[in-house]
Amino acid sequence: MAALKTSPLAPPGFPVLPEVAGVRLAAVEANIHYRGRNDVMLAAFDAGTRVAGVLTRSLTASAPVHWCRERLPQGCAGALIVCAGNANAFTGQTGHRHVRETCEAVGAQLGCSPDEVFVASTGVIGDTLPIGRVLDAVPVAAAGLGGNWESAARAIMTTDTFPKGATRTAAIGDTTVRINGFAKGSGMIEPDMATMLAFVFTDAAIPGQVLQDLLVECNQDSFNSITVDSDTSTSDTCLLFASGAAGNAEPVSASDTRLAGFREALEALMQDLAVQVVRDGEGAEKLIEVVVRGAATDAEARVAAKAIANSPLVKTAVAGEDANWGRVVMAVGKSGTRLDQRNLGVSFGGITIASGGGKVEDYDESLVTGHLKGREILIEVELGAGTGTSRVWTCDLTHGYIEINADYRS
Amino acid sequence: MAALKTSPLAPPGFPVLPEVAGVRLAAVEANIHYRGRNDVMLAAFDAGTRVAGVLTRSLTASAPVHWCRERLPQGCAGALIVCAGNANAFTGQTGHRHVRETCEAVGAQLGCSPDEVFVASTGVIGDTLPIGRVLDAVPVAAAGLGGNWESAARAIMTTDTFPKGATRTAAIGDTTVRINGFAKGSGMIEPDMATMLAFVFTDAAIPGQVLQDLLVECNQDSFNSITVDSDTSTSDTCLLFASGAAGNAEPVSASDTRLAGFREALEALMQDLAVQVVRDGEGAEKLIEVVVRGAATDAEARVAAKAIANSPLVKTAVAGEDANWGRVVMAVGKSGTRLDQRNLGVSFGGITIASGGGKVEDYDESLVTGHLKGREILIEVELGAGTGTSRVWTCDLTHGYIEINADYRS
Repeated sequence: MAALKTSPLAPPGFPVLPEVAGVRLAAVEANIHYRGRNDVMLAAFDAGTRVAGVLTRSLTASAPVHWCRERLPQGCAGALIVCAGNANAFTGQTGHRHVRETCEAVGAQLGCSPDEVFVASTGVIGDTLPIGRVLDAVPVAAAGLGGNWESAARAIMTTDTFPKGATRTAAIGDTTVRINGFAKGSGMIEPDMATMLAFVFTDAAIPGQVLQDLLVECNQDSFNSITVDSDTSTSDTCLLFASGAAGNAEPVSASDTRLAGFREALEALMQDLAVQVVRDGEGAEKLIEVVVRGAATDAEARVAAKAIANSPLVKTAVAGEDANWGRVVMAVGKSGTRLDQRNLGVSFGGITIASGGGKVEDYDESLVTGHLKGREILIEVELGAGTGTSRVWTCDLTHGYIEINADYRS
Repeated sequence: MAALKTSPLAPPGFPVLPEVAGVRLAAVEANIHYRGRNDVMLAAFDAGTRVAGVLTRSLTASAPVHWCRERLPQGCAGALIVCAGNANAFTGQTGHRHVRETCEAVGAQLGCSPDEVFVASTGVIGDTLPIGRVLDAVPVAAAGLGGNWESAARAIMTTDTFPKGATRTAAIGDTTVRINGFAKGSGMIEPDMATMLAFVFTDAAIPGQVLQDLLVECNQDSFNSITVDSDTSTSDTCLLFASGAAGNAEPVSASDTRLAGFREALEALMQDLAVQVVRDGEGAEKLIEVVVRGAATDAEARVAAKAIANSPLVKTAVAGEDANWGRVVMAVGKSGTRLDQRNLGVSFGGITIASGGGKVEDYDESLVTGHLKGREILIEVELGAGTGTSRVWTCDLTHGYIEINADYRS
């Protein structure tokens, strides 16, 4: 394993996550792949907990993703178990059997149906899960269920250098509800309908379909708006659990006006986690926010923004603190999105470099270079073709990425 | 400028390129961006020379690309001028005026119409061309026209570490014709209808439309089948000039059976140059050939092959000589191409790692690791969904790529 280093973009510490009524957590050491750290996370939910989820669209999705996809429509959850270090992906019928055995063990331990146990795995693709060690870990975890959120967030990490958590509150009618979440990155990140792994928990009472609608909606501008390396994982999973313990009056649809505050809090929390995933992108030294305006449609703006955010040449220029804005022009050009070259504009850090299709006459490159020496970089592009906008987050491409990924398995 | 290093994949030397009747070349030092090396290449063609071309589909294409696109339909060429170090891209009306002034100067010097002068530029995007130095170089170049192909190939290089040239002969009827070509890379390479810059010259007599049909066809499995970093340039240009000096009987269409040998030689030459571009990919230490079979269509096979070839995780695994074949599974999964996971197979260096949807029982990883220690890596994937195939070439992603691209402009 590459030694974990502290990211220069790491937050000062893990936030304080208060209890979410109806949710208990545990983290244990199962030695799946790592040694000397917790690598299995178990969450147990009170009866009546609803679940929503978005999963990778990869056609080589992992066995846990298949399991969750089949069981999400029922909308009820009793538990969640997550294994770190092995993705249980491309493992054939053996992999599917291991998922079933895991969920049966958790169900037996917690007294719920195996079909109400959700599961996720993250790590190496193609290796068989050491199922014995996972099964041994289940009763140990069940005996330790409690409220240590940071420990849970740490147990799902792989190449992450810091645990990622966030918390919000919102009012639904007269009831205050809480939302906690945690996530992990940090390579193979260009989520397609979900990030690698993210779990969100609330005590709100929200019917399954409403929960699903809210999750899909909030996912679009959070986990679906980040990219570390353009590689979509076989394991991307974002699950949202709602215990209902807060006892609020249940909304009947996602468009219920009483959900406005909840929706806002949920999206903010998911965006918070998503940006934390990028901050901990493999080798990341700078967080890059890309804003595209003036596209023919929002969808085209997103394509252009992703083209910039995924361009190795843009990402290395930022790593080198080089104001090479021509590479941004290249990236929007190759993206195929409609643009008017005569009205194309580019700015870095709020400093206009090009507008109206050419470099600004008195452009002072030293100002842009100053911005690039910071840790948070803003790239804005105007396409001049309409009113579509998009915002995505990425990180720079550094020697650290090469180091981490050239010897990940050894 | 990053110092040029010798690529570990460099050929032993530039091949001997015999004369192509009707074509003369010169290389001169204009100090456009580089110092102490030739950076302007001029080619002069005998009257009656036909031209075909494929150009970048980037929507932020450079001024030279626009010029060539407008003049290709006429099918006649008198000269070609290439500037290295400045792309003359995103330079507005000034950039277009500089192209016109350059072509007028060349036309006046060589006694041809400016509209028969073709032009290409490569280098930094967004900076104004130092037009005075280019115009000063034109008469010097015209005075030095001759047959030094290596010197011409060197004059168009940017971050390339070696010049790229190739030569072939073919018979058209009873006449033997020659084809020479040279190209440059080596970053911002995922050509879309053409590579960064490639120029091919023949003494064959072939009508313009036939030449164009042949070029488009041969381009598909050569320059359009390579990728270094997934970034499509604003300047991609591949031009094919035919002087007609060989005096063969002119074919009337690209399907003329007398062109079989010429087509084969042209495609082989273009593939030779394309693979040389990848061998000199920025930071490349290994050449990777990706073959995808069993896709629903050839087009889907290409999408899957490109997804593998552009995956930073696959490319870093190869750089690290790590048999992390799970990343290949990830890449085909994210590509969205139809596949049957139960029939998915992966092999490295001809050694089957996975087949029938899972890892081979007695798979010996040490054999694959041995293959990965070499310089030429073969990755083969079976999708199990049909009979479509594709082959693309790429290189590994190394610290060298980061070094070259984090301080390219400084």
